[in-house]
Amino acid sequence: MDLKTYLSERKTLIDQALECYLPPGNGPGQRVVEAMRYSLLAGGKRLRPILCLAAAEAVAGNVEQVMPVAGALEMIHTYSLIHDDLPAMDDDDFRRGRPTCHKKFDEATAILAGDGLLTAAFEVLAAAATNHPAQASVYHEVVQTIARAAGYQGMVGGQMADLLAEGQPSTLEQVEAIHRLKTGALLTASVRSGALLGGGSARDILALTHYGEKFGLIFQITDDLLDVEGESAEMGKPTGMDAIRQKATYPAVMGVAAAKNQARDLVAAALVDLQPFGERAEPLRQLARYLLVRRQ
Amino acid sequence: MDLKTYLSERKTLIDQALECYLPPGNGPGQRVVEAMRYSLLAGGKRLRPILCLAAAEAVAGNVEQVMPVAGALEMIHTYSLIHDDLPAMDDDDFRRGRPTCHKKFDEATAILAGDGLLTAAFEVLAAAATNHPAQASVYHEVVQTIARAAGYQGMVGGQMADLLAEGQPSTLEQVEAIHRLKTGALLTASVRSGALLGGGSARDILALTHYGEKFGLIFQITDDLLDVEGESAEMGKPTGMDAIRQKATYPAVMGVAAAKNQARDLVAAALVDLQPFGERAEPLRQLARYLLVRRQ
Repeated sequence: MDLKTYLSERKTLIDQALECYLPPGNGPGQRVVEAMRYSLLAGGKRLRPILCLAAAEAVAGNVEQVMPVAGALEMIHTYSLIHDDLPAMDDDDFRRGRPTCHKKFDEATAILAGDGLLTAAFEVLAAAATNHPAQASVYHEVVQTIARAAGYQGMVGGQMADLLAEGQPSTLEQVEAIHRLKTGALLTASVRSGALLGGGSARDILALTHYGEKFGLIFQITDDLLDVEGESAEMGKPTGMDAIRQKATYPAVMGVAAAKNQARDLVAAALVDLQPFGERAEPLRQLARYLLVRRQ
Repeated sequence: MDLKTYLSERKTLIDQALECYLPPGNGPGQRVVEAMRYSLLAGGKRLRPILCLAAAEAVAGNVEQVMPVAGALEMIHTYSLIHDDLPAMDDDDFRRGRPTCHKKFDEATAILAGDGLLTAAFEVLAAAATNHPAQASVYHEVVQTIARAAGYQGMVGGQMADLLAEGQPSTLEQVEAIHRLKTGALLTASVRSGALLGGGSARDILALTHYGEKFGLIFQITDDLLDVEGESAEMGKPTGMDAIRQKATYPAVMGVAAAKNQARDLVAAALVDLQPFGERAEPLRQLARYLLVRRQ
């Protein structure tokens, strides 16, 4: 398979689904729907939904049926970006090469757009569950998995810890703990949800969850490396900001070379998790390798 | 029945449940859990969960089983208060007689605390659904009802419209449309969820939803009246703020006397909706009447 073609085809499918889950609004609150769509349809990599669909593929699941869950994951990811970019948080002006939501609209609208996307994600999940009554218990587990990964025991807790750690000296353990919550939890949940809904066995789900946990760590290490070594134009946002903000990052605590080695070792280990799945896990395999060479 | 005793007993039960759904945190994100608990356990009236439980009672449902849904409704209500109070939104310093979340903590923590509560609400709902697999389809409808009422087609859209209407001349239709979304939708969803999970017939659910819609309107009219006529000390926040902010309110567009008449007429109509339920609907009946005489 050619990863570039695969990613581009999947992104098209996901973008179409997102457009359908969040059509243009009307009525008194229309402005918030515009802001939600501005950020959601701004053309991200769609990594979380792609991981979710690829995990369903790995267990020979029905990709189409998993799409609402994939869409909900992207909605949750986008809400978190909108809120993280706010002046009271990371105060970022650019995202995906465009003004951030609060710059394009205003702070109040951006706060509400994030709230609206987070809520819409659970609405999409509930609607999907309603359409598949025979799989109710799997949907419940998926929603619990995603809610836990997104909430105070996951992403929200990680963003809190990340803000508190700014300007503080950090150990490797602290950096790992923060990133496991802030970024890792939702990436792992994306893989796990796909495996669950795709109908994987308990053993499959466990192996793919382990892959997902490693994927989350590799993603964060390479994300930190891109902030040190990446090109601002390709990233769609300024680079070098972590150092300026004294953020807790892998290169900062272990150095660039050691961080690169760590990422490579984790990819090798993630590939071992995928062994039982043979050819069906080829997208997940290539996605892990891709993290090492990505430029955005 | 004595309403005061009923409300106080229910409030105690709900407070115990909320304490259990959101125990004190630990780990790197602990500060956000503190902020979530600060606002959630600040002792509100618990009107939404009480309505939900009372609707279940009206259809002879199991109140205990409905408790997680009642708790989730209060979490969603509290998140909306935290975000509405932010400087970029209504910029309020006091709520329930105490500093607002961003005053007690800081803006970033308050944004995350709201996000955490909204997410936790859906986690509690998913956990409850998992525990009652036989009623999966009812839970899905409850989650959809609540998500829609809370999102851009409900509360989030209403808050957006309310912010846009500030300082603009409003018609009665506009005021009603805003409040139906901003406050009415979640109150109606509270009643409807209780009726659904309590096992009401389609006819029961429809009648109680109609009651809930009227309850939402009455609540907002009397809330607007309290801002004009209420005592700041009893409200736990400054009064007279709507006029200062040129908010779209009922007294502003129709006058105080007409607004009071309107509220009384709506209560009479809401009592008609409750006729088929006999003695079991006594709490809902008294709750509607209570809105006319409440002082906070």
